[in-house]
Amino acid sequence: MTDRSPLRDLSAPPFVTRHVGPSDDEQARMLQAIGYASTADLIALAVPGAIRAEAPLDLPPAASETEAIAELRRLAGRNQVLTSMIGLGYHDTVTPAVIRRNLLENPGWYTAYTPYQPEISQGRLEALLNFQTMVADLTGLDVAGASLLDEATAAAEAMTLARRAGRAPGATFVVDADALPQTKAVLATRAEPLGIELVEADLTGGLPEGELFGVLVQYPGASGRAADFRAVAEQARERGALVVAAADLLALTLLEAPGALGADIAVGSTQRFGVPLGFGGPHAAYMSVREGLQRQIPGRLVGVSRDADGHPAYRLALQTREQHIRREKATSNICTAQVLLAVIAGMYAVYHGPDGLRRIAQRVHRHAAVLAAGLRGGGVEIVHDDFFDTVRAHVPGRAAEIVAAAADLGVNLRQDGPGHVGVTCDETTTADHLRAVWKAFGCDGAVLDDLDTATADALPSGLLRTTGYLTHPVFGAHRSETAMLRYLRRLQDKDIALDRSMIPLGSCTMKLNATTEMEPITWPEFAGVHPYAPAAQAKGYLELIGDLERWLAEVTGYAAVSLQPNAGSQGEFAGLLAIRAYHKANGDEGRDVCLIPSSAHGTNAASAVMAGMRVVVVACDDQGNVDVPDLVAKIGKHRERLAAIMVTYPSTHGVYEETITEICELVHQAGGQVYVDGANLNALVGLAKPGWFGADVSHLNLHKTFCIPHGGGGPGVGPVAVREHLAPYLPGHPGTESAVGPVSAAPYGSASILPISWAYVRMMGADGLKAATEQAILSANYLARRLSPHYPVLYTGREGLVAHECIVDLRQITKETGVTVDDVAKRLIDYGFHAPTMSFPVAGTLMIEPTESEDLAELDRFCDAMIAIRGEITKVAEGAYDRTDNPLRNAPHTADSLLGDAWEHPYSRAEAAYPVLSLRDAKYWSPVRRIDQAYGDRNLVCACPPLEAYED
Amino acid sequence: MTDRSPLRDLSAPPFVTRHVGPSDDEQARMLQAIGYASTADLIALAVPGAIRAEAPLDLPPAASETEAIAELRRLAGRNQVLTSMIGLGYHDTVTPAVIRRNLLENPGWYTAYTPYQPEISQGRLEALLNFQTMVADLTGLDVAGASLLDEATAAAEAMTLARRAGRAPGATFVVDADALPQTKAVLATRAEPLGIELVEADLTGGLPEGELFGVLVQYPGASGRAADFRAVAEQARERGALVVAAADLLALTLLEAPGALGADIAVGSTQRFGVPLGFGGPHAAYMSVREGLQRQIPGRLVGVSRDADGHPAYRLALQTREQHIRREKATSNICTAQVLLAVIAGMYAVYHGPDGLRRIAQRVHRHAAVLAAGLRGGGVEIVHDDFFDTVRAHVPGRAAEIVAAAADLGVNLRQDGPGHVGVTCDETTTADHLRAVWKAFGCDGAVLDDLDTATADALPSGLLRTTGYLTHPVFGAHRSETAMLRYLRRLQDKDIALDRSMIPLGSCTMKLNATTEMEPITWPEFAGVHPYAPAAQAKGYLELIGDLERWLAEVTGYAAVSLQPNAGSQGEFAGLLAIRAYHKANGDEGRDVCLIPSSAHGTNAASAVMAGMRVVVVACDDQGNVDVPDLVAKIGKHRERLAAIMVTYPSTHGVYEETITEICELVHQAGGQVYVDGANLNALVGLAKPGWFGADVSHLNLHKTFCIPHGGGGPGVGPVAVREHLAPYLPGHPGTESAVGPVSAAPYGSASILPISWAYVRMMGADGLKAATEQAILSANYLARRLSPHYPVLYTGREGLVAHECIVDLRQITKETGVTVDDVAKRLIDYGFHAPTMSFPVAGTLMIEPTESEDLAELDRFCDAMIAIRGEITKVAEGAYDRTDNPLRNAPHTADSLLGDAWEHPYSRAEAAYPVLSLRDAKYWSPVRRIDQAYGDRNLVCACPPLEAYED
Repeated sequence: MTDRSPLRDLSAPPFVTRHVGPSDDEQARMLQAIGYASTADLIALAVPGAIRAEAPLDLPPAASETEAIAELRRLAGRNQVLTSMIGLGYHDTVTPAVIRRNLLENPGWYTAYTPYQPEISQGRLEALLNFQTMVADLTGLDVAGASLLDEATAAAEAMTLARRAGRAPGATFVVDADALPQTKAVLATRAEPLGIELVEADLTGGLPEGELFGVLVQYPGASGRAADFRAVAEQARERGALVVAAADLLALTLLEAPGALGADIAVGSTQRFGVPLGFGGPHAAYMSVREGLQRQIPGRLVGVSRDADGHPAYRLALQTREQHIRREKATSNICTAQVLLAVIAGMYAVYHGPDGLRRIAQRVHRHAAVLAAGLRGGGVEIVHDDFFDTVRAHVPGRAAEIVAAAADLGVNLRQDGPGHVGVTCDETTTADHLRAVWKAFGCDGAVLDDLDTATADALPSGLLRTTGYLTHPVFGAHRSETAMLRYLRRLQDKDIALDRSMIPLGSCTMKLNATTEMEPITWPEFAGVHPYAPAAQAKGYLELIGDLERWLAEVTGYAAVSLQPNAGSQGEFAGLLAIRAYHKANGDEGRDVCLIPSSAHGTNAASAVMAGMRVVVVACDDQGNVDVPDLVAKIGKHRERLAAIMVTYPSTHGVYEETITEICELVHQAGGQVYVDGANLNALVGLAKPGWFGADVSHLNLHKTFCIPHGGGGPGVGPVAVREHLAPYLPGHPGTESAVGPVSAAPYGSASILPISWAYVRMMGADGLKAATEQAILSANYLARRLSPHYPVLYTGREGLVAHECIVDLRQITKETGVTVDDVAKRLIDYGFHAPTMSFPVAGTLMIEPTESEDLAELDRFCDAMIAIRGEITKVAEGAYDRTDNPLRNAPHTADSLLGDAWEHPYSRAEAAYPVLSLRDAKYWSPVRRIDQAYGDRNLVCACPPLEAYED
Repeated sequence: MTDRSPLRDLSAPPFVTRHVGPSDDEQARMLQAIGYASTADLIALAVPGAIRAEAPLDLPPAASETEAIAELRRLAGRNQVLTSMIGLGYHDTVTPAVIRRNLLENPGWYTAYTPYQPEISQGRLEALLNFQTMVADLTGLDVAGASLLDEATAAAEAMTLARRAGRAPGATFVVDADALPQTKAVLATRAEPLGIELVEADLTGGLPEGELFGVLVQYPGASGRAADFRAVAEQARERGALVVAAADLLALTLLEAPGALGADIAVGSTQRFGVPLGFGGPHAAYMSVREGLQRQIPGRLVGVSRDADGHPAYRLALQTREQHIRREKATSNICTAQVLLAVIAGMYAVYHGPDGLRRIAQRVHRHAAVLAAGLRGGGVEIVHDDFFDTVRAHVPGRAAEIVAAAADLGVNLRQDGPGHVGVTCDETTTADHLRAVWKAFGCDGAVLDDLDTATADALPSGLLRTTGYLTHPVFGAHRSETAMLRYLRRLQDKDIALDRSMIPLGSCTMKLNATTEMEPITWPEFAGVHPYAPAAQAKGYLELIGDLERWLAEVTGYAAVSLQPNAGSQGEFAGLLAIRAYHKANGDEGRDVCLIPSSAHGTNAASAVMAGMRVVVVACDDQGNVDVPDLVAKIGKHRERLAAIMVTYPSTHGVYEETITEICELVHQAGGQVYVDGANLNALVGLAKPGWFGADVSHLNLHKTFCIPHGGGGPGVGPVAVREHLAPYLPGHPGTESAVGPVSAAPYGSASILPISWAYVRMMGADGLKAATEQAILSANYLARRLSPHYPVLYTGREGLVAHECIVDLRQITKETGVTVDDVAKRLIDYGFHAPTMSFPVAGTLMIEPTESEDLAELDRFCDAMIAIRGEITKVAEGAYDRTDNPLRNAPHTADSLLGDAWEHPYSRAEAAYPVLSLRDAKYWSPVRRIDQAYGDRNLVCACPPLEAYED
């Protein structure tokens, strides 16, 4: 029996062979190029033995793509999608199919990075500008940001904004008793470490006595009540406090804008604008502010500027406000947004236009009004006369029974104690739903058409909207499906995302977001579940979440994981809260010093401040490593107050510091806790576990290491992982007892995208995950080796090796030639590439992370571009190109700029456009030339400009 | 009670408002521009009263997108997807997710048109060239075409090719007794009208006696038997006959190529290369031929040529062979392909590469070998020792019981009489499936691992493949998911599809293919059903098909509809067969004359010839209308032999001929039948019904009127609709009794895309369908009115109105300036548009069909482009531009061609690239300059060229 291969040798190639770019053959060539016989040899030298975890990860064997999808279908099948009339800030909505397919399911949109390189991000920047315009218009305020994480954290950001921007004394912030429960809970979590006193008050009678710096009103309230808060706002203004309105955007199409009622700040969710419920997230929250506060807005703000040819161009405005610049002086640790979801919400408004939105709102309201009338007719007491979409019924002692009866009819209602039931209508509500609700309440006599004829609207007459909105032409120009399809394509085509070329962003890990990982998130069984649906209806989600928590704990060597934080920054905050609570429980209230190396991400410091800690900076040596003598000194100085150290590992310089275990020991000996920032966990997975080599807590970035796509700047997921002793201090859920409160609005944060990371781990298995890490290290070292003859490579470890990324130093080049990192970054656009990370962690350098997913051809194409650019720099150095007129300084080149009759540059048009041959087959044309950042900040425009702005 | 809008006034805007481009306001502006007060006024004048059907269509009320999706989910839920081991040419397969999402579900691919304009089709042409290379390599023949409709019709095409190309006498074609049953059935349908005698023969003993012009061998056979046909081929060659091998491409990765065994022609299906089963289609069939026969290949052939700058460029080769040129001398009526499916199959090969494909085949075979061993071990007799994927078991009297037992275990097997069961393995087969089959056969003792160790392969040792395949680098360069994603994006970006701009193709109706229509086709419940699965497992499909047949009958005014024809050409053929059978049943065997107006699509004549009819051409008058006196004369001449007239209505000139009812009457009076070609049915839906105004039979084009996308040149669906007296003569299914045999391999043709048309009708309802027709007419007339001051508009009807398309005449312009329709078409590319239909139905003209889906902005953008081009023509006329050096003649301009140092044209670079301002915001760059068609035909290259061809 010789002429056979047994079945076990014929199995389908595992998913890892699709996820990892280089083939076995290419790997061998790369190893040879850097002089290693095997990956094992390379890893043995690159990764310090002291941290190595040799045992394979204890994970289920790798599933094929087909098997993983089958398992996910089984999990999806365990969820039960009932009609949700629960409300509480989450509403079912119809995602227009053209938007779902061509945006949410389109890698051209979902694999894009944050638009820090604005020239190659004009498409998504325009989409975000639409979002900002929509929010500013509907809220009646002057400037809106480009989205926040969720309504509750947006409210918390508004609270701290009010504190720093207001002129009122005191540390009290008043919260509407009718605010959403999750908003109250997150505000409490965030207020306590900052020493803010939260006072909950029924605002129907006005503001409570005493000093306050701000007040939050929910508009309409969680109970459904739609009340005029002008009087409250007036009182607040008189007392120097700022007014935050947490407002429902759909209601605002019918009700007067918060800005017109006196709000200084508006926050809320845009989920019901076409974004699926998804068991709680991700959704885009919004914040808008009145003129004067715009420089205080946390997170991202898109603005209009001009390019080198004077044409209008979009970019992120006021970036100097951002956490990565301000560090411990930061006012927020927000460093991401919910771009993909904000873009969906903005496109929903573009597709429906103001008339369409108003009509949807009218229908929602009409259903609620008729519903209330039917209930009243059946003898049910309705608590509020004025409401938008939510009817609150007073049913003494009957609430549970009614909610159960409705569930039997396929409808989830909201129970509020033994005697109240809330029913919320939304875009998907139909007559059948009303009938089911009536039946559940025992109001069988209600006849819809009769009630419809006989019932007036229940909107408060004094609050009917009089101010206009969405008057910009973009909200009317794309109303047919064909027009919307083309608008989405046109914007997508302006941008570079992973579907075009490598995005070699150091520290940002732009690896493959596999289709099989992405497909399940738009299945209705995952997309349609309300975050507060009964747990019995979310069994599939809960099983998946349990799996993923367990797997992540195994990968990191920790005991427990919370998936609640919906961004890395929130994971950091949650991790520090756990440390704080642990010290407190041990009677160590005084421990409030957080050591942070100077090389850290700015977010670390910002999170520490939010967690009530004092930041003490530890120096780094020339190699970017923690300066251990300085660390010892700082520990000595703060020993009694030492709460924690936050270190990133491998370091932000892309190096495995040899001293990490020593650092952990030193801090532990002084009674401190060790926080290892998991930003670079992708260089450890399968090789080392932070929970084993000395850390107590880490946050991870699922959107980096675990394949959740960047979405153009969000969503992210930032789980927090802890050792056993910190497990009791993980974030709680609203409504459950916990030592630490919730940090996100939804119990499981961005639950609906967790299938992505689940599928990744499930399909890679232990061997695959390890292979990916090894390839990432190999690729970074290959790249460093190819570039090092042309650019100095900084911060290498043993044997001149780097970890998963490498830093090339342009400082000397800049000094000698005037060519800056900016010039190189912008010139790379002409070569079809997104720039590497600029000037982080070291000014004047580029940090390059190839990831494991890029194959050798693409790595080489990138190296070829960098080397060709070095050749151009040499021409500047040699005087062949002028220092201020050369293809680098003039980059990026638009086609337009190359087609004028005159051409007076020292390089040819073809050299500008086609510096390497492969560009002739596939050329990306930048839609704008280099953007003037300073001009945009000086002339701040954060809404869609009038069409005339584009005329020549 | 005044402050309310009742619910009925607040319903969500119907789907028609998304499908139809112009808003109410835009419609009003368009009516005003052409001088009509209302659409009704316009339609009353444009459409002859004699044909108007005033009663509203009797269709279900329009569903919203949400409702339609819910109904489709219900229908999908009625299908039961069992594991299919039925075989018979349909095999389950794993569509790589990256290909499903980024190709099959991507409007950039599925909304593209047939690549007749090669410059804007380089992406899909390259993909098709991959397909051709794959087929030629695997079959070991010299030239492969760009796909055919299904294996059975491909076999029929091969039969007729053999007849015309062979040198043997006689009219006999021998068919392998072991051929697929559906192939035999379709061959019979196609042979009979052509006078070909089909002889079925067991070829194990060689060819039967007697004259023959060709023979078809199935390789491997339907029974699974893999036999060497070298001897048969040798005998055939000696007798001057051609050898057709119907071969399984996956088997060919292990078995010697048909070309190496002596086949002249190979045909087969490429379905199992990643294309879902889909209840039978659409799938791409292939045909390849040996050197010398390439000019005989039916359908499309992609070839390599060069552009005006001498760069390699792809285009359709040898187009003069096509039916639209040859009319009644055509050798085939094939005028479409299965491009989208062929592209998927080609990409599947690119993604797996030769090694991956071989490994899949080995696994499939190994499963079959082990399966057979287990059955043998359990005492079951296995009929063939040599097989690839199919095991034929002899189980006297037990077949039904075994098949039922397997179905209970979730596996469909193939029953063949009372005593035989076939079991076919495929890419998705697992050990569990083998265990289920063993259990169903009662072979419970089989132990997989033991059998795997003990069992040799069952491939015939003399047939093991020795020739290489897929050696071109493209079959190895895109093996990671990231690389494949980018390859798909890069190719897509080269092309213009509907997601970029209007495709104003007269007679081709490039209207919206709505996402909601498209989404269901990739749901597993539709995608995973085998065409021969028991009807009880396909209840959802059968209900959907029943609905659609009924609705199409209502729309057309006919009594019965068959959805089997998988292209318009096949629908024509089926319709003519019905007429032929009807005459025969009436004893009118002599009626074989088919009258066809000179303005007809060439397909009409070709189909008539295939149906055994003689074509008699009827003249048209100056207006393109049927010349009634000539018709009367021709009827008079052929009265006794008159079988039918085929007319297109509205005419191919885009005019509602006033005489249509008279024409129908004249033909009927002479005993003939009236065939109305439904190509232009979109100008009638909701306004007139062919079945009511005099026609007996029509075919429709679901890919035109009913929103199935063009897919870059297929799939299409061409249902045939007939009045009551012809209903008995609709195509039958293989294995069922019928007066007329099947015309397609699968009982319901391209079943899996029928949800598209179902959803369209379901969401439009009677009013929506009518509104779409009216808008299409309004838009065509608006366009004609805007263009008529600049270009003569031909063939208008009453009041100078056109129907749904208009023809602009360039003949005088060409005469005066030398600027041709080609020049205008290619110059439109520079403006970002696909050209209108060129020189059909009249040479020297452009036929423009705007469809109802284009909004006013896009219509105006197109008109502005045409008018600007007219301005450029004027400059030629006035001498400002040289006659041979002007932006029209030099179009399209690549960026490359504009960036040279020298520029010596009489127009500027900017004028070449940005003749209108809007192009600066979104510019499509043609990837090649104008392609030299003649060069490509003289130097025929139909496979991927070596990489060196692209070097400068």
